[in-house]
Amino acid sequence: MPQVTFLPHEKSIEVPAGDNLIRAAMEAGVHINASCGGDGVCAKCRILLESGAVEGGLSERISTPDQEKGYRLACQSTVIEDVTVRVPVESSIDASVLKRQATPRSTARIHQPDFESLKEEGLFVPPVEEVCLELPEPSATDNQPDASRLVNFLTLNHAEHRLVMEMPVIRKLPEALRGDSFRVTATLARPVQPGRKTHIINIQAGDTTDRNYAIAMDIGTTTVYGQLIDLISGEVLAESGDFNGQISYGEDVITRIMAAEKPGGLDKLHEVVAATMNKIIAKIVKRARVDVDDINAITIAGNTTMTQLFLRVDPRHIRRSPYVPASNIYPPLKAVDCGLALGDHAAALVYPQVSSYVGGDIVAGVMGSGMYRTDKLTLFMDIGTNAEIVVGNKDWMACAACSAGPALEGGNIEFGMRAAKGAIEDFSIDPATLEPMILTIGNVRPKGVCGSGLITTVAVMFEMGVINNLGKFDRDLDTPRIRERENVYEYVLAWADETQVARDIVLTEIDIENLIRAKGAIYSGCLTLLEEVGLGMADIEQIYLAGGFGSYVDLEKAMTIGLLPETDPLKVTYIGNASLLGARMAALTNRLRQDVVTVTRMMTNFELSETASYMDHYVAALFLPHTDLNQFPKLKTRLGSAKANS
Amino acid sequence: MPQVTFLPHEKSIEVPAGDNLIRAAMEAGVHINASCGGDGVCAKCRILLESGAVEGGLSERISTPDQEKGYRLACQSTVIEDVTVRVPVESSIDASVLKRQATPRSTARIHQPDFESLKEEGLFVPPVEEVCLELPEPSATDNQPDASRLVNFLTLNHAEHRLVMEMPVIRKLPEALRGDSFRVTATLARPVQPGRKTHIINIQAGDTTDRNYAIAMDIGTTTVYGQLIDLISGEVLAESGDFNGQISYGEDVITRIMAAEKPGGLDKLHEVVAATMNKIIAKIVKRARVDVDDINAITIAGNTTMTQLFLRVDPRHIRRSPYVPASNIYPPLKAVDCGLALGDHAAALVYPQVSSYVGGDIVAGVMGSGMYRTDKLTLFMDIGTNAEIVVGNKDWMACAACSAGPALEGGNIEFGMRAAKGAIEDFSIDPATLEPMILTIGNVRPKGVCGSGLITTVAVMFEMGVINNLGKFDRDLDTPRIRERENVYEYVLAWADETQVARDIVLTEIDIENLIRAKGAIYSGCLTLLEEVGLGMADIEQIYLAGGFGSYVDLEKAMTIGLLPETDPLKVTYIGNASLLGARMAALTNRLRQDVVTVTRMMTNFELSETASYMDHYVAALFLPHTDLNQFPKLKTRLGSAKANS
Repeated sequence: MPQVTFLPHEKSIEVPAGDNLIRAAMEAGVHINASCGGDGVCAKCRILLESGAVEGGLSERISTPDQEKGYRLACQSTVIEDVTVRVPVESSIDASVLKRQATPRSTARIHQPDFESLKEEGLFVPPVEEVCLELPEPSATDNQPDASRLVNFLTLNHAEHRLVMEMPVIRKLPEALRGDSFRVTATLARPVQPGRKTHIINIQAGDTTDRNYAIAMDIGTTTVYGQLIDLISGEVLAESGDFNGQISYGEDVITRIMAAEKPGGLDKLHEVVAATMNKIIAKIVKRARVDVDDINAITIAGNTTMTQLFLRVDPRHIRRSPYVPASNIYPPLKAVDCGLALGDHAAALVYPQVSSYVGGDIVAGVMGSGMYRTDKLTLFMDIGTNAEIVVGNKDWMACAACSAGPALEGGNIEFGMRAAKGAIEDFSIDPATLEPMILTIGNVRPKGVCGSGLITTVAVMFEMGVINNLGKFDRDLDTPRIRERENVYEYVLAWADETQVARDIVLTEIDIENLIRAKGAIYSGCLTLLEEVGLGMADIEQIYLAGGFGSYVDLEKAMTIGLLPETDPLKVTYIGNASLLGARMAALTNRLRQDVVTVTRMMTNFELSETASYMDHYVAALFLPHTDLNQFPKLKTRLGSAKANS
Repeated sequence: MPQVTFLPHEKSIEVPAGDNLIRAAMEAGVHINASCGGDGVCAKCRILLESGAVEGGLSERISTPDQEKGYRLACQSTVIEDVTVRVPVESSIDASVLKRQATPRSTARIHQPDFESLKEEGLFVPPVEEVCLELPEPSATDNQPDASRLVNFLTLNHAEHRLVMEMPVIRKLPEALRGDSFRVTATLARPVQPGRKTHIINIQAGDTTDRNYAIAMDIGTTTVYGQLIDLISGEVLAESGDFNGQISYGEDVITRIMAAEKPGGLDKLHEVVAATMNKIIAKIVKRARVDVDDINAITIAGNTTMTQLFLRVDPRHIRRSPYVPASNIYPPLKAVDCGLALGDHAAALVYPQVSSYVGGDIVAGVMGSGMYRTDKLTLFMDIGTNAEIVVGNKDWMACAACSAGPALEGGNIEFGMRAAKGAIEDFSIDPATLEPMILTIGNVRPKGVCGSGLITTVAVMFEMGVINNLGKFDRDLDTPRIRERENVYEYVLAWADETQVARDIVLTEIDIENLIRAKGAIYSGCLTLLEEVGLGMADIEQIYLAGGFGSYVDLEKAMTIGLLPETDPLKVTYIGNASLLGARMAALTNRLRQDVVTVTRMMTNFELSETASYMDHYVAALFLPHTDLNQFPKLKTRLGSAKANS
C-alpha cells in the first residue's frame, strides 16, 4: 500500500491506492481545513506535494503558478504511490498546535463468519434436508397407501424415525410419486431437539436434491434485510434490504405499538411488514434465479416488538410496566401462515426472545457472533435507538436494554441524518483557528451529520477544548463559527454556500446534550449490568459491536465521549447486522437451533428501570466522558498533556 | 303387552299397545290380503273380532251388519288389550296353506353404546380437556412472558409436561390472561400416544370448564350425520343428518372420484361436503344452544374416498388398480383448515383408513361396536352400495370390501326407493291365491320398494314357491299378478289405483337378478374372507350389522335369500350408524384414539378382486339362497317340509 507522509506533522500512514488525500489525512489525525465535505468547492484543503505524485487535485481555484509549484486540493487528489505532502501552516500559532491533534481514526475489525469451520466440525446440517428415494412401485400384492410407502422406505432404508407427514405433503403425494416412476425427493425438517419428530414438509417428483435453499431475514425497526442462502454450499446467493414499511406508522417500537393498539392496527402493521419482506424475497429470488418452490425455510430474527407485530401478536404489554411479552418461544410455523409469499411447505423459524426489550435480534446476534461459545468475558452491544447489552460468555450471560433515544441515528439532532450520501461522517478542528475539516459520505457537499460523524465531532471538540465536559462551548473562543442563536450556543460546521441545504449546518449545545444523554444511557447501562453481576468495565476481554451504527464509528472517539468503555480498539469487533448473521447461521446448522433454547434460558434479563443504581450511574455518565475521569485513564493522560502543551 | 291371537292359524304374539293389527299379523307370520300398504283404501284386510276389543277399524267399506258382527279392517285397528281375531278363510285351498306361512319377522337387537362402563373403567377422558388456572399476576420481579407464565404454572401445579402452545393461543394470551385478573381456562389436546406432546389449543378468560363440547361426524357417501356431544356428561345434546351435497356429482364413490378428477373438481367436492357439514354443525349448535367457541374438537369418520375428498386429497388412485389410497393416517388438523365453521382452536380428528375400500367409517365401526375388545369371533358387516366386511376379534382382524351395487338401497330396481314414507317394507303372500299383504313405511299407499322390503318380498316369494332358486317366477301359476311384459316376467305388488304413483308397482325378474347379484357379492365376500383366514361361516359367534340397511331388515328373510349366513338371529346385533358411533366414542375417550392405531395396523386387508377363489364363490352364490343348500340347513328343512305339505 502506498505511504502518505504529512509535513510538518511528520506523520505517515499507509492507505489503499485510490484513497483521496483528505481521507488519508483524517485517518492519520492530521487536520486540513475543509468545509465542503470533499466536494472540491471550498478549495480550503490546499496542500503542497513535496515528493511523489497524485492523480487529480487540480482545480481552477488554484492559480497556474501554484499548480506548477505542486499545490493541489487534497480532497480531489487520489493516492497512487508513496507521496509526501506539506500542509500549509499559516502562523506560528498553527504550528504550536501540531501536537494537539486528535487520536488517529480507529474503526473496529469486521467479523467474518467462519462457515468453513462449521463444515469441519460437522455442524453444517441445515434444519431442512432433501433426500432422493427410489420407492418400489405399488402392485396387487403391495398396495399400501402412498404415505405408508414413503414413511416405511425412509424408516427401513434411511434409518429415519418418528416421521410426521403434514397435510400439504399428503395432498401432493399421489402426483409426486407417479411423476417420475416413484423416484421422489422428500424434504425433511429436523426437530430442534434430537429424538423429537422429523416432519416431512415437501415431496417432489424426481431428484431435486441439488436445489435446497433458505432465506435468512432480519426484521429491523427501520430496515429489513434478507439473504438467499444455498443450503448445499452454504453460500449467500443474493441479499437485499429495504425500509420497514411500518415506518410510516412510527419511527420506533413504542409508536409502532401505539399504532397496533388502534382498531385494525395490529393486522395492518403485520400486513405492512409482510409486504416489505415479500418485496425483499421477490428481489433476492429473482436475483439468485432460484425457483421459489425450492426454498424450504425462512429463518427470522427481530426485536420483540417486530416479532410480535410480524406474527400478529398484540404487543401492547411490551410498553407497559412490568413489560411482559406474549411469548419468548414460537413454535415452528408455516411461512404461508405468516403471510409470506413462499411455497406452502416452507417452514418459518423465528428466533426466540429474552424479554420485551431483549429480542430475537439480540439472541440471533449472540448466536451469530459466537459469543455463546467463547471463554472470554464479552460485552455485546447492539446500538441504535434502543441499545441492547449482553455481557457474559459460554457459561453465563446477563442482558439489559436501555433507551438511548435516536441521537446516535441522527434523530433529535438539528442537522442529524441517517448515514447516507452528504452526511458528515468525519471531523477535525484546528484548535487555533477553530476551522473545521469535514468529510462526508460520498465526498459531496454536506447535508447534515450522521451518528458516527456526531460522535467524532463532539469527541474532537471536547479533546481540542472547544467544549467542556458538560458539552458547553468555551464562551471565550473567538471565531464566527461559534455563536449564540435564540439563547443556544452552536458551532457552524459548514456555511450555507458550502452545503446542499443552503443553510448553515450547525451543531448546537442541545444536540450535544442529546448525544450525551444517549451515550450516558448506554454506558451506564453497561456499568449497571456489570455491577449487578459483580464485575467492572476492566474485566471485559472483548467487545462485539452490532447494528448499523458500528461500522463507521471511530472507536477512539466513542471512548473519548464515554460511549464505549476505554479499551484496546483491537479488542473490539464489528459484527455488522448480527441479527441477520444469526438468522443465516440458523438456516445452515440445526445445532444452533438446539443451542439457542439453552442460550435463551441462560440469558438473565435485568430491567434497568427496576434497578436502583441505574439512575445514579446514568447521572454520573452525563459528562464527557464521565464524572469519574479515572474510568478513562488514557484520555485523562491525553487531556493532561494537552493542557501542558497549551 | 297385549296378546293378539290369530285364528285359524292359532298363532299368538305380544305387541306393544298402539300397534295396528296388520303389523301384528306380519310379525306373527300370518298372511292377510292387503294391497294399500295399510292406508285403509283397499279394504282387503277384513278380520273378525272373536274376543276383546280394538280401537278403530271401522270403515264405510264394511257394511253396518258386518260391523255389528265384529268385522274390522286390520290395518285401521289399534291393539289396546288382549284380542282374538279370525282371518277369513275363503276356501279349503286357503286353509290347506295355513302351515306354509313364512317365518315370523325377526329384526336384530339394537346395540346400545355403554358409556357408563367407560366412566367406571376410568376411560372417560376426552382428547380435549379444560383446566382452570389462577395464575400469579406479573410484577417487576416476575415479568416472564405470558406464555411462560402459563406453561410453567401447568408444569409446576398440574404436573403437565411436554406442552406445546400453538400460534392462535399465543395470539389470544395477552387479552385472555388480563380479562379476569389472570384466572384463565386452558384447553389441552392430549396426544394419541402417552408421553407425547400435549397441545394447548385454547385459552379463555375466567373459568369456562363447565362448557366443553365436541362434534362427532360421519361423512357418508349418501348422508352426513353429526352429533353435538357434551364432554362433561358424555351426552349427545343434539343430532342431525342431511344428504351429502356431493350427491349431485354422482351417487357412488366411483362417480365422485371421476368428478374430482375434472379440473377444479377436487376443490369443488371438498367445498360441497364441507358446506353440508357446516349446515349440520350450525343446526346442532343452535339446537343444543351452545356457543360454537366452546366446541373444542370434531371427530370425523368416513370411507376412504369421502375422507380424501373432505381433506382435498386427490382420490384418483382409489379407483385404479392396485387401488392405492394417499394415506391411511392423517395428522391432527385444525377444523378451520378443513373448511369447517368452528373456532380456530378446534381440533379435527380424522379416523384412519385401512385401504382404498375399507375406510375410516369401518374402523370407526370396529371401535364403536367394541369388536376390537371381544374374544368372540365376530363378523362385522356394513352393508350399502359397497359392503365392507370385517372378521376377527381382539386378537386379529381381516377385512375386505365388495361392490354390491345399489339394489339393497333401492337402486337399479324398477320401483326401488330409499326407506322413506310410502316404501313397501314388509310383504307376505297367500300361497294359494297369490294375493299379497304389503305394509309401507308410514302406512300410506305405496310408492315403491325399499331395500329391506325387497329382501322380504323375494324371500317370501322364494319360500312360498312363487319364484325358484334362480329367482324366476313359476310360469305355471295362475294369477293376473304374474305377467310378462316386454319379455320380462313380473309380479304386481300393488295395482295402480292402490298406489300413490298411478302405475302398477311391480317386482320384475331383472330386479330379483340385481338383488341376487348384490347378496351374492356380499355373501361370497364373507365366505372368501373367512376361507382366506382358514374359517367357515359356522365359526362365526356373532354378527354386527351396520349401516342404514340393518335396522329394518328381517334377519330370517335375509338368511332365506342367502344374504346373511344362517345363524341364530339372537347372535345378530344391529349397531346402526357405526361410523357415527365410533366418531362419538373417539370424542369421549382418548384411550380409543390410542387403540385405533394398533387396531388399524392389525386389520389385514384382502383385495377380493385379487383373490382367485372370490369369483367361484360369487358364481355359487348367484342362487337363492346358494348353490349349496347345505350351507342353510334350517331353510333346507323348511323347504323340505313345505314340499311335503303341498
